[in-house]
Amino acid sequence: MNSNKKPIRIALIQMAMAEGAEVNQEEAERLIREAASGGAQIVCLPELYLGRYFCQTEDRQFFDQAVAYPGELAPRMAALGKELGIVLVVPFFERRAAGVYHNSAFVVDADGEILGLYRKMHIPDDPGFYEKYYFAPGDLGYQSFATKFGNVGVLICWDQWYPEAARLTALQGADVLFYPTAIGWHPEEKEARGVEQHGAWQAVQRGHAVANGCYVAAANRVGNEPNPGGGHIQFWGQSFISGPAGQLLAEASVENVEVLFADLPLDEIEVQRQEWPFLRDRRIDSYGGITERFGKP
Amino acid sequence: MNSNKKPIRIALIQMAMAEGAEVNQEEAERLIREAASGGAQIVCLPELYLGRYFCQTEDRQFFDQAVAYPGELAPRMAALGKELGIVLVVPFFERRAAGVYHNSAFVVDADGEILGLYRKMHIPDDPGFYEKYYFAPGDLGYQSFATKFGNVGVLICWDQWYPEAARLTALQGADVLFYPTAIGWHPEEKEARGVEQHGAWQAVQRGHAVANGCYVAAANRVGNEPNPGGGHIQFWGQSFISGPAGQLLAEASVENVEVLFADLPLDEIEVQRQEWPFLRDRRIDSYGGITERFGKP
Repeated sequence: MNSNKKPIRIALIQMAMAEGAEVNQEEAERLIREAASGGAQIVCLPELYLGRYFCQTEDRQFFDQAVAYPGELAPRMAALGKELGIVLVVPFFERRAAGVYHNSAFVVDADGEILGLYRKMHIPDDPGFYEKYYFAPGDLGYQSFATKFGNVGVLICWDQWYPEAARLTALQGADVLFYPTAIGWHPEEKEARGVEQHGAWQAVQRGHAVANGCYVAAANRVGNEPNPGGGHIQFWGQSFISGPAGQLLAEASVENVEVLFADLPLDEIEVQRQEWPFLRDRRIDSYGGITERFGKP
Repeated sequence: MNSNKKPIRIALIQMAMAEGAEVNQEEAERLIREAASGGAQIVCLPELYLGRYFCQTEDRQFFDQAVAYPGELAPRMAALGKELGIVLVVPFFERRAAGVYHNSAFVVDADGEILGLYRKMHIPDDPGFYEKYYFAPGDLGYQSFATKFGNVGVLICWDQWYPEAARLTALQGADVLFYPTAIGWHPEEKEARGVEQHGAWQAVQRGHAVANGCYVAAANRVGNEPNPGGGHIQFWGQSFISGPAGQLLAEASVENVEVLFADLPLDEIEVQRQEWPFLRDRRIDSYGGITERFGKP
């Protein structure tokens, strides 16, 4: 094998969110320090970790939670990453301009450099997940960030259902696809559909790992969060890390705040891609129809 | 729901192959009749079911096993389908012209009409699976065939590792993606890697079902087949059918010849796609890079 990639340890922060950005930031920093103490070199937070999942309802007041990039948050996280000597994947509600908001994430390198931004490309809109109201679709395309400890692909939540997003990020060289996530059950659906919904979520992402011969790591939130309009969502936790054969390397609980670790021998990516040479045989001459909505080009 | 699609029963033929095309054809017909007796309306055979898996070695003599299309095989299967009132997915080694051979499959409708041809787009080449020697890459693109009992997408074996192939076939309207398959373990790898290899195979296909909100049905062969050059492959059976949430609806054994049935409520496709509206949110403006081999366009 020729990749010369060193093994790394990563950690996913599975958090429960309280009211108030500073409270959540401090909790995130506590958990990041715990991750670093445990040897993690790349740490990923869950989607929109600075607050409750406000997209349960459409209310203009929540735009006030958006923050600038790099603003104050990115330098603060860069300083933390530098202090601990680790890479951080940091999702946040981005205020780009008056009326232009994104669901974004930035990456800071272990030396404190702010490497850049990913803006969520696929924006959901379902009952209780009214994201199209808040977030303009991303316009930066699919990103892999070269860090001290490996190439970090960043995608966010709803992106995880799209093989195109996983493929395009892997084709940028990502060793690990990180998915900051906020997914849960509607209480009224959980008993009948809960196992199936979670199963679909995990299956499609393990499929991305297999198809691309890379690692996949999804960091979800936990806990019940009330909907100001009534009801609540039970975020289903179960953050997980998959190997390039789709094997589960680590999986967190349904209900607990946790730091989930996994050791990733990154040189396994090249071994896997030699043993299963899918990337060699892609019929790129035949994929043009992928840019169609439906039917033939 | 508006699809007006009727529930159907499908069957996958999990076969072990003997020497001699006519012997295998008769066994296939026996199993197809068993499937029809069991109420199956669409029946799929495993890849290259007319013979042993000759691609274990590169030997010019095996080109003599290729047959014309429609030739004798397609009318024979069309007559069988018409007699039984069922749709058949029939894989075969296609002789298109001197020196032009394909790994193909045709579909016959329940009224005996021969609906058309799919030619395997992704051709593997690994130790023991030397298909690039035998088969020219398909040039017909991704196909969905409108049959009496639903829209039948056909892909073949190595295609199953490619999200692009599944997506493009689903975008043609396929209700079910059928994957005639010939996959197995090298005996020397089975103990160490067997579970992982099979797990990857199933995971990536369950992922296709989820991402596209359609059914997936993979018909594999079983049994040990000797390699004339030494060794053998143990075809791993475990043909399976997945629902549009990636749930396993039916799974065959590792070692037995079987007819694997599943009832597919096709109107669940539209329900699933309403509940998980992935197709609505595809960022077709951003997928152009899929036609690149690697890196940015």
